[in-house]
Amino acid sequence: MFKPLKRVVVTGGTHGNEMSGVFLSKHWLKNPCELQRKTFSATPFLGNPHATEKTVRYVDQDLNRSFKTEILTSSNEGDELYEIKRAKEINQLYGPKGSSQAYDFMIDMHNTTANMGACLIVDSPENYLTMHMANYVQKNYTHTKTPIYLYKLGNEESYAIDSVCKNGLALEVGPQPQGVVRADALKHMRGLVNSVLDFIDLFNQGTTFPAFEIEAYKLLAREDYPRSSDGEIMAIIHPNLQDKDFDLLNPGDPIFQTLDEKDILYEGDNAIYPTFINEGAYYEKKVAFAKMEKLRFSIPAIQAQME
Amino acid sequence: MFKPLKRVVVTGGTHGNEMSGVFLSKHWLKNPCELQRKTFSATPFLGNPHATEKTVRYVDQDLNRSFKTEILTSSNEGDELYEIKRAKEINQLYGPKGSSQAYDFMIDMHNTTANMGACLIVDSPENYLTMHMANYVQKNYTHTKTPIYLYKLGNEESYAIDSVCKNGLALEVGPQPQGVVRADALKHMRGLVNSVLDFIDLFNQGTTFPAFEIEAYKLLAREDYPRSSDGEIMAIIHPNLQDKDFDLLNPGDPIFQTLDEKDILYEGDNAIYPTFINEGAYYEKKVAFAKMEKLRFSIPAIQAQME
Repeated sequence: MFKPLKRVVVTGGTHGNEMSGVFLSKHWLKNPCELQRKTFSATPFLGNPHATEKTVRYVDQDLNRSFKTEILTSSNEGDELYEIKRAKEINQLYGPKGSSQAYDFMIDMHNTTANMGACLIVDSPENYLTMHMANYVQKNYTHTKTPIYLYKLGNEESYAIDSVCKNGLALEVGPQPQGVVRADALKHMRGLVNSVLDFIDLFNQGTTFPAFEIEAYKLLAREDYPRSSDGEIMAIIHPNLQDKDFDLLNPGDPIFQTLDEKDILYEGDNAIYPTFINEGAYYEKKVAFAKMEKLRFSIPAIQAQME
Repeated sequence: MFKPLKRVVVTGGTHGNEMSGVFLSKHWLKNPCELQRKTFSATPFLGNPHATEKTVRYVDQDLNRSFKTEILTSSNEGDELYEIKRAKEINQLYGPKGSSQAYDFMIDMHNTTANMGACLIVDSPENYLTMHMANYVQKNYTHTKTPIYLYKLGNEESYAIDSVCKNGLALEVGPQPQGVVRADALKHMRGLVNSVLDFIDLFNQGTTFPAFEIEAYKLLAREDYPRSSDGEIMAIIHPNLQDKDFDLLNPGDPIFQTLDEKDILYEGDNAIYPTFINEGAYYEKKVAFAKMEKLRFSIPAIQAQME
């Protein structure tokens, strides 16, 4: 069922102002030996070079939302947006998405301005390989409940860059301002990547990874800032909520504060776990924070079928 | 010698991604009553509306470096850069720079990704009015040695937006990521502005402010990141230096770390006080941190000459 993962790519700069990944990718492109293991050697990659050059998230549109089949197979030529052209290139390099030629795995490095620490972003809990990988990272590198973030809402198609490969994992480290590289965030990111590569190496050697139970956070919905009729943001993240990613938020707790210093309370029916609180890139996406539920999943044992 | 300050402007969004000032300016443009005092009413102002709309520092060039007389009096028409046109407009609104028609005072609100807390940026210690203002803020609002940052190097002309008025003060609050508004930074900025307005009100009422001695930090030079021959940054701010703005740095202390984890040490002859450490907007300006010396100044008493 599972085959060894021989063709692995490590991507930074999918968002050009998330600097841990940008600096690590550029470093590994010059010195790739850190990405080498007994059973494979991962390929370093810079996702969005134009955005990286300008230190912006993207030039024309968010590259990490550009990997839907509809976009990858669209036929307009010549006057395409930069990130659409780039997504098609990446799909040729490491895909095509959904095909047998696709690379086995992509690790995609991200940073957030939110106080999320290290967070492991997986598309769905049915992705047993990546859930084992997350479990391995928690047990062997971070030694804490480094949250697993399940990002797919309902049956939507995966739109992220790692969906061109057969499997993928996005690493999110925060807080780090856009356009800034902090040594602590970079070190954390580097440790995560190395731990994932170690897991893949063990997996490729035929190690049996036994069944386990694990907690993960699943996206329920996204909450926008309160806005006036002209679309202007009318209240900001409440100081009690700021930096409290993955803490429990109960109905009646303050979530926003107006500039007249009035509190706006959370009116949901159930307690949630907010994440991506005050992420800089999400103002334009109309997301003040993501609303998550905490669930428990049973993951069966896996072992690579050796060739 | 000193006249009451009747025409005062409070500016935000001189840099369009420094969000405490952006949010406060937009709020005060709708509800200006907070800027009212007995003796005057300050005018709220949004410095760079196009950059604010795009949530970028600037569109064509840094507005806060565009107020040299040479730029303000240049004659090219039509194909000018946006911020040059805007600087000329602002010079007409609140200047002209150096003229008797100029507004009396500008408070300009800034944020930094550096861990600087609240910082009061003054052009020179000979500016007694602003030095008194800083002393008042330290004694009455922050109750701490909120650093005074003297930014002029040698005899260079003031290039900042507040130089169009007869006098000015830039307020810097950090850390806050670019494009993000944090309730704590916004509250701090708001308190600083109100404290400055309170000072101006007392000054306008004829209060005598006695002579005092005060410490301030004066810019000596700026330190770039280590770069390769192709201009790429080869080392990042050392974890021991990160977030240590205004702490003493001695020769031999580590300042950078390469991606091979080698330390680069400070080689200056004398201890300095680094500031604007790892400011996001300064990567392109080739500034990893500003090197400051701490000096003590004697400021004479002042009193407004009543009309």
